[in-house]
Amino acid sequence: MVTRLALLGAGRIGKVHAKAIASDPRAKLVAVVDAMEAAAKAIADEAGAEVSTIDAVLANKDVDAVIICTPTNTHADLIEKFARAGKAIFCEKPIDLDVARAQACIDVVKETGAKVMLGFNRRFDPHFQAVRKEIDKGSIGKVEMVTITSRDPGAPPVEYIKVSGGIFRDMTIHDLDMARFLLGEEIKSVFATGAVLVDPKIGEAGDYDSASLILTTASGRQAVISNSRRATYGYDQRIEVHGSLGSVAAENQRPVSIEVANKDGYTRPPLHDFFMTRYTEAYAAEIKAFIDTVENGAAASPSAEDGLIALKLADAALKSAQTGAAVAL
Amino acid sequence: MVTRLALLGAGRIGKVHAKAIASDPRAKLVAVVDAMEAAAKAIADEAGAEVSTIDAVLANKDVDAVIICTPTNTHADLIEKFARAGKAIFCEKPIDLDVARAQACIDVVKETGAKVMLGFNRRFDPHFQAVRKEIDKGSIGKVEMVTITSRDPGAPPVEYIKVSGGIFRDMTIHDLDMARFLLGEEIKSVFATGAVLVDPKIGEAGDYDSASLILTTASGRQAVISNSRRATYGYDQRIEVHGSLGSVAAENQRPVSIEVANKDGYTRPPLHDFFMTRYTEAYAAEIKAFIDTVENGAAASPSAEDGLIALKLADAALKSAQTGAAVAL
Amino acid sequence: MVTRLALLGAGRIGKVHAKAIASDPRAKLVAVVDAMEAAAKAIADEAGAEVSTIDAVLANKDVDAVIICTPTNTHADLIEKFARAGKAIFCEKPIDLDVARAQACIDVVKETGAKVMLGFNRRFDPHFQAVRKEIDKGSIGKVEMVTITSRDPGAPPVEYIKVSGGIFRDMTIHDLDMARFLLGEEIKSVFATGAVLVDPKIGEAGDYDSASLILTTASGRQAVISNSRRATYGYDQRIEVHGSLGSVAAENQRPVSIEVANKDGYTRPPLHDFFMTRYTEAYAAEIKAFIDTVENGAAASPSAEDGLIALKLADAALKSAQTGAAVAL
Amino acid sequence: MVTRLALLGAGRIGKVHAKAIASDPRAKLVAVVDAMEAAAKAIADEAGAEVSTIDAVLANKDVDAVIICTPTNTHADLIEKFARAGKAIFCEKPIDLDVARAQACIDVVKETGAKVMLGFNRRFDPHFQAVRKEIDKGSIGKVEMVTITSRDPGAPPVEYIKVSGGIFRDMTIHDLDMARFLLGEEIKSVFATGAVLVDPKIGEAGDYDSASLILTTASGRQAVISNSRRATYGYDQRIEVHGSLGSVAAENQRPVSIEVANKDGYTRPPLHDFFMTRYTEAYAAEIKAFIDTVENGAAASPSAEDGLIALKLADAALKSAQTGAAVAL
Repeated sequence: MVTRLALLGAGRIGKVHAKAIASDPRAKLVAVVDAMEAAAKAIADEAGAEVSTIDAVLANKDVDAVIICTPTNTHADLIEKFARAGKAIFCEKPIDLDVARAQACIDVVKETGAKVMLGFNRRFDPHFQAVRKEIDKGSIGKVEMVTITSRDPGAPPVEYIKVSGGIFRDMTIHDLDMARFLLGEEIKSVFATGAVLVDPKIGEAGDYDSASLILTTASGRQAVISNSRRATYGYDQRIEVHGSLGSVAAENQRPVSIEVANKDGYTRPPLHDFFMTRYTEAYAAEIKAFIDTVENGAAASPSAEDGLIALKLADAALKSAQTGAAVAL
Repeated sequence: MVTRLALLGAGRIGKVHAKAIASDPRAKLVAVVDAMEAAAKAIADEAGAEVSTIDAVLANKDVDAVIICTPTNTHADLIEKFARAGKAIFCEKPIDLDVARAQACIDVVKETGAKVMLGFNRRFDPHFQAVRKEIDKGSIGKVEMVTITSRDPGAPPVEYIKVSGGIFRDMTIHDLDMARFLLGEEIKSVFATGAVLVDPKIGEAGDYDSASLILTTASGRQAVISNSRRATYGYDQRIEVHGSLGSVAAENQRPVSIEVANKDGYTRPPLHDFFMTRYTEAYAAEIKAFIDTVENGAAASPSAEDGLIALKLADAALKSAQTGAAVAL
Repeated sequence: MVTRLALLGAGRIGKVHAKAIASDPRAKLVAVVDAMEAAAKAIADEAGAEVSTIDAVLANKDVDAVIICTPTNTHADLIEKFARAGKAIFCEKPIDLDVARAQACIDVVKETGAKVMLGFNRRFDPHFQAVRKEIDKGSIGKVEMVTITSRDPGAPPVEYIKVSGGIFRDMTIHDLDMARFLLGEEIKSVFATGAVLVDPKIGEAGDYDSASLILTTASGRQAVISNSRRATYGYDQRIEVHGSLGSVAAENQRPVSIEVANKDGYTRPPLHDFFMTRYTEAYAAEIKAFIDTVENGAAASPSAEDGLIALKLADAALKSAQTGAAVAL
Repeated sequence: MVTRLALLGAGRIGKVHAKAIASDPRAKLVAVVDAMEAAAKAIADEAGAEVSTIDAVLANKDVDAVIICTPTNTHADLIEKFARAGKAIFCEKPIDLDVARAQACIDVVKETGAKVMLGFNRRFDPHFQAVRKEIDKGSIGKVEMVTITSRDPGAPPVEYIKVSGGIFRDMTIHDLDMARFLLGEEIKSVFATGAVLVDPKIGEAGDYDSASLILTTASGRQAVISNSRRATYGYDQRIEVHGSLGSVAAENQRPVSIEVANKDGYTRPPLHDFFMTRYTEAYAAEIKAFIDTVENGAAASPSAEDGLIALKLADAALKSAQTGAAVAL
């Protein structure tokens, strides 16, 4: 069997997913949809797919699954439509920036029994996967403390920030999902602090650019997240998990691993400067995992529910930052 | 001029300080006091000093300065006595576990104009000093976020924990001082969470063994502290400072820097397993710095006031952990 | 223009090159040749190419270039045939194990003016490329000493060793080419020593499994090569270049960059265990570079001549190991 | 029992040894001899020792052992005199730059049965010791290949080079001894190449400033040494031992272990810039080991014989560099 896919959204992330589909012999891209027809055509031509429309894909019996990479505010509607049409769905995070809307969408997903996988790509990074495998193998014993450092090379445009849902829903949400992926217990309490240290315009837009969080579980496990919208040395993405028998850490990735030594010392080049080069392998692996579940009927993971929980944690973080008190979940 | 010192307390840390004095040609140890006369005699004999008593040292015109390494509950009394006797004072942290008692002691210090230096030895670690120098040089621009990881190889005996003042006053206090040393602004708010993950007996003694903290300054700078009473891989002591132009980090120290590669991978030996081997250079450097200030009349740093502020931060952390809300200072 | 390629040899390296061609929009694989038709068909089907024969490809006006990955003893003949047919040629190293035969082949290449690129893939490794770029930028000043460590995870079967030409022509030849790539001057003298330390059967087959070499240039620049047929920790591939202003080094690559710390120390996973996973990027980049030269008419590099020089150096190494004296070139 | 020592030579290395003696409670420095009386007096005063003469020390029944740090050309004479006087002897390397003279001296040592330890301090470096311990524990199986990188921050004055015996006898000799320390078998053959790449004046003085060596043992074990008189990044001292089950390496030491990250990358400070700060611990440990052997009657190691063998290897290296052929021992 070959899984036949339609790509909804032909932007930069759509291109990445189209490439992943092309390199998997079990899958075939058959349709591409985008408001910009030229963008859809470019991807469709390379893949031997056709340019199509949402309605045509909904009606197309030959399409088994859709990849949703359209703007955030269309996600919930599209998930609902394609769930009802019986298609398997991969959707970029988030379902929606509003918890109620996301919850309603999930209700439809449940009702229809649709397979929905959410694009928390970092779970598929081979280095973070290796960290998780060490935990599962028992190498570090019982997980006690998780540390996540996540800093962007630079802030996005203020126009984007205004519609992003704010740092916690836009950026921290990845780290909140990663904390859940590693803690092994649900988070029961969130404390967050936010500040504007990078760019006053971000503050004027009502957002923070620097944030620190402490998450705790029922048994007292703790996760710490450190976020900044600026890291001159590149895209800083580290995790460390401390347990009863030891700890395991994933270091930053570098485009090249050389070191130059001279009278000023030993210098390694900066980190990746873009999330798409840093997470190239993760993007490919998540699409492969989605095709796996379509092929073998397994449950999709991370699920739409995982997306909702991360969103609730982000909302709790915002509330905590505004009130100065930990927020219970 | 040679600074003539008396050592009060001939325990293991007293021995370390005696050695530091012996290796500084500007200083001479002339008297050693301890309730255990044999301990005092051992140090005195090696240094060519005499065994003495508190009262005799107080009355001894030939003693310029004292090093206080007696039990914590004697610190405030001894500081007051020797301040009134006009001696320069180096005292192991803390002044006292009680803020009011510590404040009263500092009032006497101020009134007498005594020179008092507090033993926050980590400020003198050459690696942490190098971090601070990079900040002062402007290498990382404006400081924004400080991360301190501080984990002990193993928990102290429960009997010690019962009189220690608790993890925040006993262990975290070093990290609170280090955060102040690096943030460049006073801490205005403390959030802390504590849990018992290592040993239930610590919980029964009313203390935590695992803690995470977020500290913030008036301008929004943030520091995160991660503490555990257990690290199987050794004494874990790392700091990282993130700023507007970059970041600077001090890695862990290892007794030997070799790496063995075999079919199981590449293995480096564990870290130091004891704070006194980890901070050997820091202990020597702090005594040298104290002698410097006695010689050149400069102000002692860290001061008794620094000790009081760290204690107040520790108290705030405890209150925060108990209430779930950030505590303002 | 699209470059139309035929693949000669459908073994494991043929598959890798077919993939590289598929991912380059400027190129198209049109024919695949292999003595094993099923192997040829598998690659041809995936690429939309046809299964063909040497003669048919020679006669096919639609084929611009060939990729030769057939057994070593066919390389020289095939290069000559396709050079006379006016095709651009990419050939896996070596041209031949015999210097005279390789020289004769190169004479034909020169006579026909054919474009021939030799598959010294390591020149295209992004990390080694970055080393070379630092040299070219002047970061380390004048090159003085090159150190190449090159160790295989395990020895190939003795049957292979018997026909391999021996360690210097089979394994060291890559390092000899890398030394030339980095030294910036031609090698004038080779000293080598070989021993059988890994497997006596290799010795019985008349070969060495462990070798050390010193190469020197006219001005006295030196390169050291260390080879072993066994490295329990994986495929060990490091280079370091020392110059008048500093040095630059490329570290080993690892499949995942995590580290586990426990009571036994800090452990990173072993290196890659296979040259094809270690040099994945290099294989793709060399085919891309070949297509570049076909498209833009530039000279191919590394050239057939580079292959001949490396072979002569390997022969000199063997002679040196047998005589105990350095061999001049 | 307290070992009573005389220090012959009050230069910079003499000061280091005096300090090591002062810090060992089992030993006491009683006499200091130097042609420059002020230098002798400075050390003597701090140690509570007396300024003395060679003859007085020879006649002094209260002196158990001597530390010889006088100029190289006096070593053999002094060793013979003090061996005949029944003193234990620690002597800086080398015994003499001339093999025949060194051999004659060793004959006297044997005849008198004197305890003589030679100052190959690097054997006592804690990191190199740890490498050796891993070999002894069997962590890497049978030793096969040793790699020693040894580069000085800068060349010594040409006046020194003229009387130094040349790079092989002056600098490489340490690495030759280290190779013996690690190979576990005697070296049977030496190949060396030398060049003048750093400073033409060194060439005019008849010496090399850059050298590469290959050493082999009877069973085929190999050691490679890389030497340069210039390393802009500091005192470069690395060893790596490859064996049948794995490898073990000692990395360079740094004065501080911090790393600064900014837009130009990740930078660690340069290495130590002076052998005496790099090998501080090794110098102290070798004197302690010497006192050990005086106290417990054990054989001294490294012995005078070790010094002679290293010198013969250095002579063989020079001959090899001059002839282009390996030299058998």
